[in-house]
Amino acid sequence: MGLKVAVIMGSESDMPIAQQVMEELKKIGILYETHIMSAHRTPARATEFAKTAKSNGFGVIIAIAGMAAHLAGALAANTTLPVIGVPCKGGVMDGLDALLSTVQMPSGIPVATVALGGGANAAILAAQILALSDYHVAATLEQRKQDMADAIEARDAAIQKTFR
Amino acid sequence: MGLKVAVIMGSESDMPIAQQVMEELKKIGILYETHIMSAHRTPARATEFAKTAKSNGFGVIIAIAGMAAHLAGALAANTTLPVIGVPCKGGVMDGLDALLSTVQMPSGIPVATVALGGGANAAILAAQILALSDYHVAATLEQRKQDMADAIEARDAAIQKTFR
Amino acid sequence: MGLKVAVIMGSESDMPIAQQVMEELKKIGILYETHIMSAHRTPARATEFAKTAKSNGFGVIIAIAGMAAHLAGALAANTTLPVIGVPCKGGVMDGLDALLSTVQMPSGIPVATVALGGGANAAILAAQILALSDYHVAATLEQRKQDMADAIEARDAAIQKTFR
Amino acid sequence: MGLKVAVIMGSESDMPIAQQVMEELKKIGILYETHIMSAHRTPARATEFAKTAKSNGFGVIIAIAGMAAHLAGALAANTTLPVIGVPCKGGVMDGLDALLSTVQMPSGIPVATVALGGGANAAILAAQILALSDYHVAATLEQRKQDMADAIEARDAAIQKTFR
Amino acid sequence: MGLKVAVIMGSESDMPIAQQVMEELKKIGILYETHIMSAHRTPARATEFAKTAKSNGFGVIIAIAGMAAHLAGALAANTTLPVIGVPCKGGVMDGLDALLSTVQMPSGIPVATVALGGGANAAILAAQILALSDYHVAATLEQRKQDMADAIEARDAAIQKTFR
Amino acid sequence: MGLKVAVIMGSESDMPIAQQVMEELKKIGILYETHIMSAHRTPARATEFAKTAKSNGFGVIIAIAGMAAHLAGALAANTTLPVIGVPCKGGVMDGLDALLSTVQMPSGIPVATVALGGGANAAILAAQILALSDYHVAATLEQRKQDMADAIEARDAAIQKTFR
Amino acid sequence: MGLKVAVIMGSESDMPIAQQVMEELKKIGILYETHIMSAHRTPARATEFAKTAKSNGFGVIIAIAGMAAHLAGALAANTTLPVIGVPCKGGVMDGLDALLSTVQMPSGIPVATVALGGGANAAILAAQILALSDYHVAATLEQRKQDMADAIEARDAAIQKTFR
Amino acid sequence: MGLKVAVIMGSESDMPIAQQVMEELKKIGILYETHIMSAHRTPARATEFAKTAKSNGFGVIIAIAGMAAHLAGALAANTTLPVIGVPCKGGVMDGLDALLSTVQMPSGIPVATVALGGGANAAILAAQILALSDYHVAATLEQRKQDMADAIEARDAAIQKTFR
Repeated sequence: MGLKVAVIMGSESDMPIAQQVMEELKKIGILYETHIMSAHRTPARATEFAKTAKSNGFGVIIAIAGMAAHLAGALAANTTLPVIGVPCKGGVMDGLDALLSTVQMPSGIPVATVALGGGANAAILAAQILALSDYHVAATLEQRKQDMADAIEARDAAIQKTFR
Repeated sequence: MGLKVAVIMGSESDMPIAQQVMEELKKIGILYETHIMSAHRTPARATEFAKTAKSNGFGVIIAIAGMAAHLAGALAANTTLPVIGVPCKGGVMDGLDALLSTVQMPSGIPVATVALGGGANAAILAAQILALSDYHVAATLEQRKQDMADAIEARDAAIQKTFR
Repeated sequence: MGLKVAVIMGSESDMPIAQQVMEELKKIGILYETHIMSAHRTPARATEFAKTAKSNGFGVIIAIAGMAAHLAGALAANTTLPVIGVPCKGGVMDGLDALLSTVQMPSGIPVATVALGGGANAAILAAQILALSDYHVAATLEQRKQDMADAIEARDAAIQKTFR
Repeated sequence: MGLKVAVIMGSESDMPIAQQVMEELKKIGILYETHIMSAHRTPARATEFAKTAKSNGFGVIIAIAGMAAHLAGALAANTTLPVIGVPCKGGVMDGLDALLSTVQMPSGIPVATVALGGGANAAILAAQILALSDYHVAATLEQRKQDMADAIEARDAAIQKTFR
Repeated sequence: MGLKVAVIMGSESDMPIAQQVMEELKKIGILYETHIMSAHRTPARATEFAKTAKSNGFGVIIAIAGMAAHLAGALAANTTLPVIGVPCKGGVMDGLDALLSTVQMPSGIPVATVALGGGANAAILAAQILALSDYHVAATLEQRKQDMADAIEARDAAIQKTFR
Repeated sequence: MGLKVAVIMGSESDMPIAQQVMEELKKIGILYETHIMSAHRTPARATEFAKTAKSNGFGVIIAIAGMAAHLAGALAANTTLPVIGVPCKGGVMDGLDALLSTVQMPSGIPVATVALGGGANAAILAAQILALSDYHVAATLEQRKQDMADAIEARDAAIQKTFR
Repeated sequence: MGLKVAVIMGSESDMPIAQQVMEELKKIGILYETHIMSAHRTPARATEFAKTAKSNGFGVIIAIAGMAAHLAGALAANTTLPVIGVPCKGGVMDGLDALLSTVQMPSGIPVATVALGGGANAAILAAQILALSDYHVAATLEQRKQDMADAIEARDAAIQKTFR
Repeated sequence: MGLKVAVIMGSESDMPIAQQVMEELKKIGILYETHIMSAHRTPARATEFAKTAKSNGFGVIIAIAGMAAHLAGALAANTTLPVIGVPCKGGVMDGLDALLSTVQMPSGIPVATVALGGGANAAILAAQILALSDYHVAATLEQRKQDMADAIEARDAAIQKTFR
């Protein structure tokens, strides 16, 4: 059976983004667990989770947090699994605080950062990673990429009728 | 034999970062190929490379570019392999142009973005991804994480003698 | 018959800006075609469109996109027609991501960037370009410039009655 | 004979960028005139130049300025020729002041803005505009685009020998 | 009789800020005229106004504009009267475009810039300038400064009853 | 005899900007006094100076400071004389901290802010203010404005010989 | 009896943040006084308050202000008590003006800055400072930290039932 | 005997700032210990240090870090002692990444942030905190504040001789 994805949010206010992640993972057919856990308010719990994630069957960790978004980094510090960071708006400068806090990691401890509020992309990136050793996920991703292109081309065709 | 990593730079001026990536991959024991290829100046070549990367034995693509850094996104548009983006300084606002151009991808096409100039971290992230299906790489990463911690603790011990 | 303008938007959410462009082109009397096409989600379609734009009778391409706005650059990479980029708000830092992704192009591949959400100005700029070889468009632009000035002076005159 | 390009710099300190523009125009084979002229220090001169540019045989105006870079806008206010703005570093926030002052023009008066310090791209954009009605310039641009791609591919081939 | 203040807005959308200026000038007892006039859309009118402002009895010009806010600079270029610039929000980065376009003037042509949307402060600054040669205005300013302090201290006293 | 200008710097490191101010005032023929005085390190001294500036014969105060640049505001809080603020680089974001700290004053207490490091412009603005009641200064400013334009036009003429 | 905390807001519009501070202090059991007082509009009152704060039984001062937020710095200039600054949104760039104006203090006069709008954290920081010499406050803080962690873990447990 | 200050740097490259802190603490007469310890590379060590800091005789922790500066937050998560954060330049946007990562802490876990590179101020703030229960430190701080003012006034007096 395939590796699971851990979906971790730093606070319950990040739930809408977590839901984007979960919906996308469900569509692709990847198992996941979702937790609330904070680098600052439950540091011991976050550390413990990261340390045992690999032996607990996780392949990728997705961390969702805003402001001084340390969650992804705190998890990455305690595992060698790939950690994907999703910075959230709501802090200052339209989320630039969360983006810089997530992406500007020191040498040795990377966080794979996606766009602000990019829950769907975090799920797809996780799937792309797992697809390297899971043929079923790989095939699903190829299909979805094609579907996405088809949908846009269909919209374009529809527009041609309107604007001509 | 394991999957290879593609190290792609958008211009020859990105070579110092590419070299960081290659050194780190070499230390971990991961095979790679390095290319110069531009989303804007050789778009056909970049498209072709991305489309055939999977069948050519690559598992991860690392794209290094500055300014309106479209390289990672242009590659990601043409593959379902995970693409890691390394934004480079040299444009405007200390590289903020490259960071935002790399990370702010639209839904459906993620780029796993690391810190500005974070060549070593791009290599480590690639290794973490490949480690999911390569026990040897996984073991190497665990060891290096421990070594890194030991080195810092050794420096801390040395400092205690200086400042006491 | 004159050259056409291509109005390309990266996603259907950019439609309000595309409509500004179309209205303005219509007023000036310039023919156009409008398409949805994405640098990341339909890259082959975007490439093909740009490569054939000149032989298909287009003189200028206007590309409308937000976030990591690669659309204008991806089109410019595949044509020598002038490409006008309209960055859109909706990403981060009030659209700064789209502005920098559009304007900060590498040497060799320019994008003529207008203000964030500047649909009308993109149309006027396209008209100014076509006017160099189209006397009718040139005359229309001169007239509109005069009308615009007259309108403001009329408003100023009206205000004098209010505030005196 | 073809239309000329006006290369206008706001201060003598912008000369290095002006020289990039001139070199590129020379290579493409486009005639130009170069002037120092300031929106703030010689406003009458700038106004006069813009008003007569068309009848004096110019097809495109390139304006180079830094800080509160009003030069491109001041020229655009007084002509219907396309005006290309080149913002320069040297002010604050790494040239963001010049970029925003150049690109954020009000509706009705566009400035075709290129990258910070993007002198070569301003020249190429001017050439792309003039190429619409000048077959020779068009052919030159196509050739240069191909040469640029070839040069990068040659560098890539050279690199393969180094890193294999 | 005292010198007048010119209140110039770049577009009718700046009226709310212009009204703040007028109300404040009225309270202090300073005569003013209000105009709509644009550096880009009615450049000749703006130039003419600035050139004749002094001989028309103005002592200070207040210019209100947003985005690539060139209005204050364009007026300052054509007069030696002090010009006060009020940058307006509505462009990009919460008005940073207007602020930088107004304040970052080149050497020789200053604009006295006040806070974003700071209409009242522009009026007070104009009054402080005129007060140097108008005893009545000077006395009014002193009184208002005292009133402002008294009002805050009264609020503070009121709050003491609430929170004790 | 005319009113004096006070040139106040927040720290000795601001001396180069203070010297620009003094040179320019000297050229125009305006008397000045120069002081080091800090809103944070000598607050009582700064308060006292501002309160007595008017009765001590000053007409304008120029305050030069960097980082959290409170100096201009602290002086403005204690006088109704016009206060000109010169923000200095050296803090963070290329001086944006000093610019925002100087210009974003609350309603009631304006600071006339000039460009970052704009010492010469602060002096000219002070002169423009004093010129309202000093015919000699007014005439000098008109002359200097003309000289500045002439100098640029001379440079332009020289350039014509080079590039033709 | 323990030292009091002074809660100072720069304007009545900062009241919502002041209320966050007061609620938190009340929960921890720390005495406080709340005042409106402005660095710019009532500078003498602010100076006097800071100078006498220590002898009036205060241990910490919390200053809440927006825009060119000089309040914390102005108080810190006149006392050796620790001053906590709470920058407020409402100015420009989403409060970046207030943040930089508060935190970028010159050497010698620190302000302990917390997050934009971080009223609760200002109160907790004040409590942490007072806890060094107040066993009761220290115990309360330990308990609250535990409660906060427990609450998050309870929410996480609840979520497990939803998403499993 | 008084409480000690912990001076923690995230990497050896932060040593110059750590030295500023130590020099200042030494001058004031406060005991300290200095360590290298990383939130990301030695997370267990950092957690352990923070948890035992209080019982080990520390009263204040000063954390110095750059880029995605999580160190101060990671320590604050594990103690109720006041934690002072010193963000360092060297990352992106002139250190804005470190500033936002340090100051934008979530509710419940404050970090007392000082200016970028503000080592001396971190030490003084620590001293101000300890001074609440240490009469000797309090007296030293008062004296130093006076000395600082005297030094500036002496410089001002010296300048009067130069510029008169």
